[in-house]
Amino acid sequence: MSEITIILVEPSHPGNIGGVARAMKNMGLSALTLVSPLRFPDMEATIRASGADDLLEKARIVPTLSAAITESHVVFGTSARDRRVAQPVLSPRETADKISLEEGKNCAIVFGRESSGLTNEELALCHYHVHIPTVSDFSSLNLAAAVQVIAYELFISSGVFSERAIPEDVESPATAGELNGFIENLRNIMIDVEFLNPKQPKKLMQRLQRLFHRAELSTTEIHILRGFLSAVAKKMK
Amino acid sequence: MSEITIILVEPSHPGNIGGVARAMKNMGLSALTLVSPLRFPDMEATIRASGADDLLEKARIVPTLSAAITESHVVFGTSARDRRVAQPVLSPRETADKISLEEGKNCAIVFGRESSGLTNEELALCHYHVHIPTVSDFSSLNLAAAVQVIAYELFISSGVFSERAIPEDVESPATAGELNGFIENLRNIMIDVEFLNPKQPKKLMQRLQRLFHRAELSTTEIHILRGFLSAVAKKMK
Repeated sequence: MSEITIILVEPSHPGNIGGVARAMKNMGLSALTLVSPLRFPDMEATIRASGADDLLEKARIVPTLSAAITESHVVFGTSARDRRVAQPVLSPRETADKISLEEGKNCAIVFGRESSGLTNEELALCHYHVHIPTVSDFSSLNLAAAVQVIAYELFISSGVFSERAIPEDVESPATAGELNGFIENLRNIMIDVEFLNPKQPKKLMQRLQRLFHRAELSTTEIHILRGFLSAVAKKMK
Repeated sequence: MSEITIILVEPSHPGNIGGVARAMKNMGLSALTLVSPLRFPDMEATIRASGADDLLEKARIVPTLSAAITESHVVFGTSARDRRVAQPVLSPRETADKISLEEGKNCAIVFGRESSGLTNEELALCHYHVHIPTVSDFSSLNLAAAVQVIAYELFISSGVFSERAIPEDVESPATAGELNGFIENLRNIMIDVEFLNPKQPKKLMQRLQRLFHRAELSTTEIHILRGFLSAVAKKMK
């Protein structure tokens, strides 16, 4: 797998640095580089890291972006704006896909200042530009939120955890025979309680059949529902 | 398109509420409901909202999760833990895909407390559980970060959505309030016919709730089922 470093350029709020560390650790990233942070280390960073302070402790601090990327093979620069630039602009998902193909390479993803992002000079140092889609009239993401989106996409595409969440423990599905037995049972009780007029039954039963088809009942659920109907029948006697 | 509401249950840090509002607005969401927030309104929320304070101003505040979802048709509950539950567990991407198909329905996505998430009772009120994948040994996301991931997936999938054809004429879907009224009705009849022992009711009602969540009942179907239960009650007298 590729080595992935997150680089923050001149972050001004230590809380954001902590939030970035937490987001990274949640998604299995650990290498953080800070370019001239305004306040660091700082208690607020540690608090917001909320258990990811190991990332803060081993964070590398450098004076410039070029110093940060000397060992990187491929550099991705995030940009909120739709800049008229020549570099290819990737979505977060395309970025993750691209990085997953850069086997054995050091990849760096660069995030700019909270207020003003990356300068044109800094963006020029990046091989690719990454744009996180947003609505057009409110496009500035919080720094930790931006890292969260990218880190999430990286984690999904890394395949460490399959994109699919843990599947449920499913019960064995009812057969059509079991379902129809239940529907027949329901029909009889509905006639007994005078809810259904057997002389004009059609639409109602079709509706209920559709409803229970849609529910994709398990055998156990059929047993429960039939148990309830038996209790109703018994009580009426 | 579906109406999407973000619900935060008992958030304790106003900064997180602000962060959530900002993440929502970046991704084109606007409906925020707060269930018993510890401190709100609060200056810290406004600061962290960073321009999304319009969402905070019109946020709805309610005392309980059930009050929050009465008008919702489909409810998604986020859960960090790998619970042994039978509700389907969706990934963020599957959640977004699912919501994009629920045209015309009110969808709610519920996020639990910073420290302890949602209770089992609250999760039982949800049609689907959503799990944001993380590394296994550091799985608790910051609240605003979790909302950011889900909102991002919703925003991405909403773009695809506009190209989709309008689905066939469907019946108006039942709200959570209507469904819960029916479940309560069913529970009472089950007690009357001695099928349910109210001293140990929990698992059975949860199971049935799950079954009927899965069926995504229409208002008309709820009327039919309640009509049947009334006929049973009448016959027993």
